[in-house]
Amino acid sequence: MNKEDIKELLESVKNNKIDIDEALGKLEDLPFKELGFAKIDNHRELRVGYPEVIYCEGKTVEQVRDIVKFMLTKDNNILGTRASYEMYLAVKELYNDAEYNSLGRTITIRKKKQDVTDSYIAIVSAGTSDLPVVEEAMETAKILGNRVEKITDVGVAGIHRLFSRLDIIRGAKVVIVIAGMEGALASVIGGLVNKPVIAVPTSVGYGANFGGLSALLSMLNSCASGVSVVNIDNGFGAAYNASIINKL
Amino acid sequence: MNKEDIKELLESVKNNKIDIDEALGKLEDLPFKELGFAKIDNHRELRVGYPEVIYCEGKTVEQVRDIVKFMLTKDNNILGTRASYEMYLAVKELYNDAEYNSLGRTITIRKKKQDVTDSYIAIVSAGTSDLPVVEEAMETAKILGNRVEKITDVGVAGIHRLFSRLDIIRGAKVVIVIAGMEGALASVIGGLVNKPVIAVPTSVGYGANFGGLSALLSMLNSCASGVSVVNIDNGFGAAYNASIINKL
Amino acid sequence: MNKEDIKELLESVKNNKIDIDEALGKLEDLPFKELGFAKIDNHRELRVGYPEVIYCEGKTVEQVRDIVKFMLTKDNNILGTRASYEMYLAVKELYNDAEYNSLGRTITIRKKKQDVTDSYIAIVSAGTSDLPVVEEAMETAKILGNRVEKITDVGVAGIHRLFSRLDIIRGAKVVIVIAGMEGALASVIGGLVNKPVIAVPTSVGYGANFGGLSALLSMLNSCASGVSVVNIDNGFGAAYNASIINKL
Amino acid sequence: MNKEDIKELLESVKNNKIDIDEALGKLEDLPFKELGFAKIDNHRELRVGYPEVIYCEGKTVEQVRDIVKFMLTKDNNILGTRASYEMYLAVKELYNDAEYNSLGRTITIRKKKQDVTDSYIAIVSAGTSDLPVVEEAMETAKILGNRVEKITDVGVAGIHRLFSRLDIIRGAKVVIVIAGMEGALASVIGGLVNKPVIAVPTSVGYGANFGGLSALLSMLNSCASGVSVVNIDNGFGAAYNASIINKL
Amino acid sequence: MNKEDIKELLESVKNNKIDIDEALGKLEDLPFKELGFAKIDNHRELRVGYPEVIYCEGKTVEQVRDIVKFMLTKDNNILGTRASYEMYLAVKELYNDAEYNSLGRTITIRKKKQDVTDSYIAIVSAGTSDLPVVEEAMETAKILGNRVEKITDVGVAGIHRLFSRLDIIRGAKVVIVIAGMEGALASVIGGLVNKPVIAVPTSVGYGANFGGLSALLSMLNSCASGVSVVNIDNGFGAAYNASIINKL
Amino acid sequence: MNKEDIKELLESVKNNKIDIDEALGKLEDLPFKELGFAKIDNHRELRVGYPEVIYCEGKTVEQVRDIVKFMLTKDNNILGTRASYEMYLAVKELYNDAEYNSLGRTITIRKKKQDVTDSYIAIVSAGTSDLPVVEEAMETAKILGNRVEKITDVGVAGIHRLFSRLDIIRGAKVVIVIAGMEGALASVIGGLVNKPVIAVPTSVGYGANFGGLSALLSMLNSCASGVSVVNIDNGFGAAYNASIINKL
Amino acid sequence: MNKEDIKELLESVKNNKIDIDEALGKLEDLPFKELGFAKIDNHRELRVGYPEVIYCEGKTVEQVRDIVKFMLTKDNNILGTRASYEMYLAVKELYNDAEYNSLGRTITIRKKKQDVTDSYIAIVSAGTSDLPVVEEAMETAKILGNRVEKITDVGVAGIHRLFSRLDIIRGAKVVIVIAGMEGALASVIGGLVNKPVIAVPTSVGYGANFGGLSALLSMLNSCASGVSVVNIDNGFGAAYNASIINKL
Amino acid sequence: MNKEDIKELLESVKNNKIDIDEALGKLEDLPFKELGFAKIDNHRELRVGYPEVIYCEGKTVEQVRDIVKFMLTKDNNILGTRASYEMYLAVKELYNDAEYNSLGRTITIRKKKQDVTDSYIAIVSAGTSDLPVVEEAMETAKILGNRVEKITDVGVAGIHRLFSRLDIIRGAKVVIVIAGMEGALASVIGGLVNKPVIAVPTSVGYGANFGGLSALLSMLNSCASGVSVVNIDNGFGAAYNASIINKL
Repeated sequence: MNKEDIKELLESVKNNKIDIDEALGKLEDLPFKELGFAKIDNHRELRVGYPEVIYCEGKTVEQVRDIVKFMLTKDNNILGTRASYEMYLAVKELYNDAEYNSLGRTITIRKKKQDVTDSYIAIVSAGTSDLPVVEEAMETAKILGNRVEKITDVGVAGIHRLFSRLDIIRGAKVVIVIAGMEGALASVIGGLVNKPVIAVPTSVGYGANFGGLSALLSMLNSCASGVSVVNIDNGFGAAYNASIINKL
Repeated sequence: MNKEDIKELLESVKNNKIDIDEALGKLEDLPFKELGFAKIDNHRELRVGYPEVIYCEGKTVEQVRDIVKFMLTKDNNILGTRASYEMYLAVKELYNDAEYNSLGRTITIRKKKQDVTDSYIAIVSAGTSDLPVVEEAMETAKILGNRVEKITDVGVAGIHRLFSRLDIIRGAKVVIVIAGMEGALASVIGGLVNKPVIAVPTSVGYGANFGGLSALLSMLNSCASGVSVVNIDNGFGAAYNASIINKL
Repeated sequence: MNKEDIKELLESVKNNKIDIDEALGKLEDLPFKELGFAKIDNHRELRVGYPEVIYCEGKTVEQVRDIVKFMLTKDNNILGTRASYEMYLAVKELYNDAEYNSLGRTITIRKKKQDVTDSYIAIVSAGTSDLPVVEEAMETAKILGNRVEKITDVGVAGIHRLFSRLDIIRGAKVVIVIAGMEGALASVIGGLVNKPVIAVPTSVGYGANFGGLSALLSMLNSCASGVSVVNIDNGFGAAYNASIINKL
Repeated sequence: MNKEDIKELLESVKNNKIDIDEALGKLEDLPFKELGFAKIDNHRELRVGYPEVIYCEGKTVEQVRDIVKFMLTKDNNILGTRASYEMYLAVKELYNDAEYNSLGRTITIRKKKQDVTDSYIAIVSAGTSDLPVVEEAMETAKILGNRVEKITDVGVAGIHRLFSRLDIIRGAKVVIVIAGMEGALASVIGGLVNKPVIAVPTSVGYGANFGGLSALLSMLNSCASGVSVVNIDNGFGAAYNASIINKL
Repeated sequence: MNKEDIKELLESVKNNKIDIDEALGKLEDLPFKELGFAKIDNHRELRVGYPEVIYCEGKTVEQVRDIVKFMLTKDNNILGTRASYEMYLAVKELYNDAEYNSLGRTITIRKKKQDVTDSYIAIVSAGTSDLPVVEEAMETAKILGNRVEKITDVGVAGIHRLFSRLDIIRGAKVVIVIAGMEGALASVIGGLVNKPVIAVPTSVGYGANFGGLSALLSMLNSCASGVSVVNIDNGFGAAYNASIINKL
Repeated sequence: MNKEDIKELLESVKNNKIDIDEALGKLEDLPFKELGFAKIDNHRELRVGYPEVIYCEGKTVEQVRDIVKFMLTKDNNILGTRASYEMYLAVKELYNDAEYNSLGRTITIRKKKQDVTDSYIAIVSAGTSDLPVVEEAMETAKILGNRVEKITDVGVAGIHRLFSRLDIIRGAKVVIVIAGMEGALASVIGGLVNKPVIAVPTSVGYGANFGGLSALLSMLNSCASGVSVVNIDNGFGAAYNASIINKL
Repeated sequence: MNKEDIKELLESVKNNKIDIDEALGKLEDLPFKELGFAKIDNHRELRVGYPEVIYCEGKTVEQVRDIVKFMLTKDNNILGTRASYEMYLAVKELYNDAEYNSLGRTITIRKKKQDVTDSYIAIVSAGTSDLPVVEEAMETAKILGNRVEKITDVGVAGIHRLFSRLDIIRGAKVVIVIAGMEGALASVIGGLVNKPVIAVPTSVGYGANFGGLSALLSMLNSCASGVSVVNIDNGFGAAYNASIINKL
Repeated sequence: MNKEDIKELLESVKNNKIDIDEALGKLEDLPFKELGFAKIDNHRELRVGYPEVIYCEGKTVEQVRDIVKFMLTKDNNILGTRASYEMYLAVKELYNDAEYNSLGRTITIRKKKQDVTDSYIAIVSAGTSDLPVVEEAMETAKILGNRVEKITDVGVAGIHRLFSRLDIIRGAKVVIVIAGMEGALASVIGGLVNKPVIAVPTSVGYGANFGGLSALLSMLNSCASGVSVVNIDNGFGAAYNASIINKL
């Protein structure tokens, strides 16, 4: 609404073409519509259908239950990450169909049916110890409405296993690679596929692994060009990111 | 070519339906067609039209000239990154229409006309000191065939400047955020747009910036969920990544 | 007490105006009054009204109780930081009106009524996980006699929430910003207010957060000029510092 | 301007109490006055009188000259930090009264006379090698309109020198402590004065000093409570911060 | 199988020298035999006789039991590393002759008798606290079929003890040196023997040892030229490596 | 035994002055007496009277008891560091007069009366949280036969307390300074005394203290010249070192 | 020379079978022959044929020339590493057949013909920027008498190139893998060959590569078991180590 | 002057035994004589004979000359460390007998003859590259009046060289060990001598040496108990420290 629009509106008021309440309604929105904030709201509207998300780590069972209780008053699906089994039991009392992924430590509540994308996200991991991050990523991707294909245990120390699964990896619209230790898998896959690769370093390993730092640096320095990186063990962030891309 | 196909081929040989040389030709490709390697080749074919890329840092002027000379025998466009002006002069002798971006330190040679995408990549940066990385990213994105919009100098210390450019950022298909110092811009934009955000930490800053480590950690720990990160100052990698997404 | 004062004193002794013991008493203090040390004492006097402070971490319940017991013999208010609930119970036996902030882990004992400043300290935080540090800062600021306004959960990932609270932040005499993860909030606020901003990085986050290092470096490298930083999770230090400024 | 105000305005338009252009003028400001952005502008207005600042590091002589040329079209004082002598010579051609502090590497241009505060900022430093940071802080504080007292070479290895200057340090409204190596001076002064202490670690030292990291960590871990810290060698930031406090 | 071989095979089919199914069988293997993958398999064949290995850390007792149960269906020896006593008890129920090294935290199952090498691996360690890594290395080396000599407690602080054992160290075909703290033992031995030295830093120590980083850096910077390094506490990796060399 | 001595011996053999067995006995010792090893033994002899030392961390109660049992067969005093109370109880059953310092976590057994030095070691510490390291240092220094003076709680945040104890610090032959947080005390004392200062950083502190790294770097970068440093929390090492100096 | 030998010698002296000077000569060597030191010498003897090595970095041209001049008085081959071209010119004046590898920065002087091993060392590298380290390793391996096969530019971003060279890598007795950036090549090769793999991280890369730290950590954390690591850019050390293994 | 002394003085005033001015004079000094400050002065007096020291790094040639000029007005010897040859030439113009150690980068001026201690400081170093630090330590120790013995090039990679010099090392009153790379020499010597060992890590080395960090950590974690450490490359600090001990 530019200056001319407002002038015209005022003239309509003056000339009784519209009544004051109608004009008021149009002007009321002005500060919010013209500025970034209106856009924030619009863009949040687009997010309708997205689940509410709770990061449970560092919260008490009571806090998690109270937050979920409040969320349940709305019509959204709900995802709890880094949730303990005790948290799940407390949530289950509120909503009996809540589900728990004990490996990925996620709570999921599905109140609304979702459409699922035709294109899929491939979640590829190196070793069995990376599975908790794999599961967190998978639960996140699914409740965001994505089709997911998991390809696990294809670490570079036995690279023939990776090659036999290459078709399914290449068929994805976006690939999440989850690996600890030296994180070499991200570079190898980055060199084999022509899709966006989101790398998740995990804290798996010992010694000079330094809680995932080794894999993190390795992935940031990947010699393959299509690789970007999220934080250590951040399966949720990778899947959230992949979902945005998958739905482009 | 599965088991049945091979059996059928052999029967055709036995029954003289096809001669041995023809059968040989079909079988010869077998190992390469059936396996990942064939696919590597196919996927490289898809990359036809992609420029050849030279990372010039640490190479001598002579080495760069020789590599470009060889590349010019093929029909591809060429991108040289981290190139000095001396390298450019040497390349210009080989190909007079070579161009140099002195801020971004890129050499570009365009032998073939490219299509440009309708959707665009927004490249957003915080301060004037981040411009070299901005330019490297822009040159990379363009030679990969992408429409690009640059929005520079919108750092969070004067956040109103960012808000006045929000429309153009939100209109992009993928957003590259380039920032040094504390790298907060990636989080702020990640919270305002619903598109994939690729964050590039830069080594701009002093003191406890530690050559970009501060911005890198900041971006990895972003509280906004749609942000992934590439290596410090890696404008090329961010643009390559963004190009893959922009063309999905 | 200057040279003339001492000369006069000696003459009073000589003239029997005062007896030797009285003169001795006055002279005895001399080294401490005339030097820096005297000033230390004077300056400590100015601090009368300040609470006694115990840092409880790493102490046993018995040690905390004994220290508080001794402190209670004096007329000061008392603040215990990093205190466990068990410590609180032991202290409560000594002084029934002792209070415990379970989130901030502080024990407070108010034996004397305090004046409260008209100007106030704004304590702003990014996420709910930063609340323990917020509460420690708030309890510290209050027992030091400051009016406090808390503005929580205004992280940069949803920056519109911050803008709706900007008035109250700008109205403060000094602002404490408490944030973990990437700590971007300090820079954003530093760019929006023209008051001293004391930033407290928190250890909230995971992966490459490295126990608060990410937020610490981010805040030290803030592109906004009015920001200074205290140690990770140091809500007490920030509030003590803010109190000095608020009372200037 | 709330809902009732707008309604009343519209009624005045309808009843011809005010004409449309007047109403338009009032409404036009609405989005900017009611929101944070208006406040940004107001608060920038308060900053009138503040110098324009250029961080010259990483810029070419030409870039610095061009920026200063543009700044000179406005009526503000100008401060250039991290400026080389060559930059100064280029600026001097534009404005003959420009001054250069070769130790602090600052360029200052004073087009307007400034008021100077009664209260002062004490700038205290440990060794002669810290002087460049001292000078940068002093030039910054002065062009921001502050009275400044410098107390240099009072490192803790000869602590008696510090004590003989304690009066002047204690008389300040805010104290900047600049120290490299182990940075112990900040803690010692923090324990002796009851004013806000802003500590600046410097990169002075060798070996395990790691470019100022040693002093930085030391200052962040100060056992004295009134100390906050800015980035390594950031004399400008410390002075800017101190100026805000000094003018409270 | 080269082009000629295939041609000949096709001619045999045509001439009815072999029937189609036989030809099919030969061709079916083609992609795998001709390429690297075939070689992977061949090379795995060479590994027959090698034990199956489970890295037990981070697995549950149930997971370890299930994996061992599956492994027992094959004819291999089994090595479990980083195994708890509870894991051992669960494994013992499956195979009564399983053995547990409580210091080295290994489970070993020997279903097949192994040849033992004539040449031996010397495992040398500095202090008694390094013994867990020594034992893990020894159990690994032994189940891989190597003769082992242990020389413990010969740290450099009492270097005469090392000299009295020098003969046995020099007699080895390959030497593993295990040391924590400053890891100097690797350099001293590297200077005294003319055999490959594999150094294992251990996390033994306190303070600025940083979980083995001190010994790791020390060993990487060894002034003796024949020393290579594996990860902190990685007794298994060192022994696996040494076994390859010992069997050359 | 030099060349001449051996020649003389051989002549005595030839001339039947001594018989072959006697000559043999003298020659047999030759390699050990003439070389460093003989000296090692001699120098160990000089250490007679020194206590046996056990570093108990990481050992089981049983291991500690067995080692002490063996040590008790010899006539030396015994010092156990980093010992738990359970270890003490087990040792007490072996030797009823064993003593336990619960703060310093040391076990001491005195079988022999020791001379005590006239000169003394001053052990100076900053805060009450440093006391465990102080006690470990004190017990070590005492059982090594040194007179010790403890001066605790003289941190630099209240530097007047340090000055009132300066006489006793200056009277020492060697000074141990134990401090955590920013470790500034070492520099301050290093500037005030003209004796060797051994600094012990402690892991006391929080946030960016990084387990003592802050104090360690601070002490290594001390601007006072007479300061050397031992490992974090290493009270034993400091006292052992100080004892050697005190007995020079 | 054991006890019996000495007894017999003494009897020969007594019986005048040998004269005293001859006996003296034999006994004089005793301490050195019987002990470790003798063995040091013996083992150095075994090294005859090994080249003399000079690490030229940090030395002046004059120093290098003087050292080489001295070495030339002996009959050994000579290897200079990290040598500048100026150093080479100075050496060439002393010995005209000296050779310079400008990429690997080595000087080699061959005064004696060497045998070359039948088995070979494979030197495998990822990118063209790793070539300086490759060349240093190759020159070292060759002057130590080893047959060498170089396989360069087989980085994991185009893994098919690696597979086409797998035969020659597997045929080696020991494999050196040289890679910068993320160093993934070491893991991939470690999983494909059953030979000792010595990994050399290089400082190639930028941003969060931290001078080779990324590749170093990656290689230390390799998921493949037969990999050990030497220092960053240490081509010499890797080749020295490989040579020992190749000659076992 | 204690309480009794003051009482007596006052009585003398009262009884006219001394006049007021005399009493005044005595009292006036009181604060300075009785307190630490007086002692600071006394203790500085003890330092008479000590050289004046200038740390030249980071100073201009002019600054160094001006400082030396001022120092020459006093009667002390002078030591300049980290001095360039240009600085030396400028100093030589002021004082023709100034000497320059080009390896150690020290300037020395001897105006007064010094006594030299009977006992000596042994300065032991590992490699030729450590010589600059050795020379700085030697020049410092000598101008402080100490007898010095240098034992260079006795690194642990050829430990027999160390043993042949052990006598002279053991004869010292205090030992300085200077070593880069892995710094193992400090531990080895610490285990062989019963004297205070001051270890100086040097920045010699490459790769994961990290500018001396490797040697620093190694020395701090030394398994030998009599070792303390100074900063990287700090030959001056080590010698200053050793001199204090040598003169005890």
